[in-house]
Amino acid sequence: MNKETLLQKLHPEIEAVNATMAREFESIQSALLAEVIGYGVMNGGKRIRPLLTILTGRLVAFTRMPDDIAKEADITPPEDLYRLASIFEFLHAASLLHDDVIDHSGTRRGQKTANRVWDETTAVLAGDYLHTKAMTMAGTIGGEDILAIIGNATEAMIDAEFLQMQTVSDFNLSEENYFTILRGKTGALIGSACEVGAIFAEATPEQTESIRIFGDALGLAFQMVDDLLDYQGDSGKTGKAVGNDFSEGKMTLPLIHTLENCDDKERHLINDLLSSTPEIRIKNIGRVTRIMERTGSFAYTREGADTLIAAAIEGLAPFKDSMAKDTLRSLAMYVLSREK
Amino acid sequence: MNKETLLQKLHPEIEAVNATMAREFESIQSALLAEVIGYGVMNGGKRIRPLLTILTGRLVAFTRMPDDIAKEADITPPEDLYRLASIFEFLHAASLLHDDVIDHSGTRRGQKTANRVWDETTAVLAGDYLHTKAMTMAGTIGGEDILAIIGNATEAMIDAEFLQMQTVSDFNLSEENYFTILRGKTGALIGSACEVGAIFAEATPEQTESIRIFGDALGLAFQMVDDLLDYQGDSGKTGKAVGNDFSEGKMTLPLIHTLENCDDKERHLINDLLSSTPEIRIKNIGRVTRIMERTGSFAYTREGADTLIAAAIEGLAPFKDSMAKDTLRSLAMYVLSREK
Repeated sequence: MNKETLLQKLHPEIEAVNATMAREFESIQSALLAEVIGYGVMNGGKRIRPLLTILTGRLVAFTRMPDDIAKEADITPPEDLYRLASIFEFLHAASLLHDDVIDHSGTRRGQKTANRVWDETTAVLAGDYLHTKAMTMAGTIGGEDILAIIGNATEAMIDAEFLQMQTVSDFNLSEENYFTILRGKTGALIGSACEVGAIFAEATPEQTESIRIFGDALGLAFQMVDDLLDYQGDSGKTGKAVGNDFSEGKMTLPLIHTLENCDDKERHLINDLLSSTPEIRIKNIGRVTRIMERTGSFAYTREGADTLIAAAIEGLAPFKDSMAKDTLRSLAMYVLSREK
Repeated sequence: MNKETLLQKLHPEIEAVNATMAREFESIQSALLAEVIGYGVMNGGKRIRPLLTILTGRLVAFTRMPDDIAKEADITPPEDLYRLASIFEFLHAASLLHDDVIDHSGTRRGQKTANRVWDETTAVLAGDYLHTKAMTMAGTIGGEDILAIIGNATEAMIDAEFLQMQTVSDFNLSEENYFTILRGKTGALIGSACEVGAIFAEATPEQTESIRIFGDALGLAFQMVDDLLDYQGDSGKTGKAVGNDFSEGKMTLPLIHTLENCDDKERHLINDLLSSTPEIRIKNIGRVTRIMERTGSFAYTREGADTLIAAAIEGLAPFKDSMAKDTLRSLAMYVLSREK
């Protein structure tokens, strides 16, 4: 399934997620709050996290049915699956709202950020609202188990952000610690988006475990591709300056691999840059990426992501062949080919 | 019970809350995050919100017991009541962390704020962590009903902050709208702290309703006294400059009442000040408070708070006389007499 077919196929589900989210906001009293939340959430996003919840839910539900009964296309997932799926978009939007305040960012993907359209107060509070809303929904729709999964994932995400802050410009950050941070930062939320869909559809423990493997691997690969795009992406598409992570001193896999595999002179240069200012780092980004090319660090990262996606797809093996399975497989492949 | 006796009596409960909170932080991976959270939460606060949960829980549990069985002092509330109580302190601390970032505050009650000791990123994320932790605990310890109560209260709080932002310098803000904002901003969380204790102790619907009346009235009175202290407090004790609300153009009850009851010349002066800059407002705060004295607006607000506290205490009538009831009554009286 190519990218266009995939997006076309997913279109109705994306619309359904958007409609569900819009309904959740109807209880907001303050017109301003409703406007800000709408702005933060209804941003034309790809809704990858909610789609994962819906698709894993569909996959498990269909697998559980006797072979002769159901035509997959006839099964309408319950409204509550869409509401659970929305939670992941709310949490994602909340973290973007807060990130933009923290970084004093003025634009995101070509749009003014909420802290710029309104102000910091507005953006922080809107993020808090989404956080609370998401957690309340998790517990009241999903029950204790699902709330605990989502709560733990969110806590792990924040914990990992702190670990990452502490390892900024830590020249000796190991691959192991990199993956620990990754697992918390992105893996946890994407993994739990998958897991929640499966649990809602009453997966067996073995099925849940398979889905967890799928989600974890997908989440890690997703972030590794992000780290690659930071160095190699088209800034017109990603909306970020090339080499942004390097200028912030963020130790990601391409850089960690480079430091492990370059010669002493190159290591000396990179370490010097990491000890200097962001301005000097960004000015020298060309020299750094040439070293990274030479050490094969981009290829190494790409291969790592490929391997993880293969493992993710392998995690789908125990499930019945279905449209949901096809789509999950395509989504996993899409993660590798995405350009933003 | 005078203030000293009250605090002495509550000391073991406050210690128990602090110990419970400390235990909740043991799972934090990042040493930095643990440090920041500790700093934000372990601030020598009076723990009024958790105490309300514990005391309403005790009150209801004791009321349910046959007269001849229990000596109240022998009943040890379950650990989970303390954990539920902690939630309200976590939510309170999270909102203070975020408020200080929003206001770029450098000190709170004589201590450096977390955004000053560390930075904004740290403070925003630490608040997010506490939020998530609190909501996860609400659902996993308290179940769906308690999660929904706490979630709705937190959403109402943020909703009310937005309403308040929109009414800054709205010279015509009515008393009714003032109370709507108050109910959301402080009342909701204090009310739900009371309600959750009662529900955890398996209160009857009638008992829960009585406790809700107690909590709502207490929460409103608490905030009205806050609004009074803003004009009349000793800034050495409150840690805030006198007239801070007026300088920010915040329409609180003393000011609303003044605008309704002053003469045209006075109204003209106040409206002019509200249309000018914070600096000019603060310079003229003496003139404004003299007008407020003349219109009896402080006395009016104080009487309103007195009436609410009387209603709150009346809400305790259906419960068995007990230490818990005595203490709740004293806490309610304390709200009126507090100086910070």
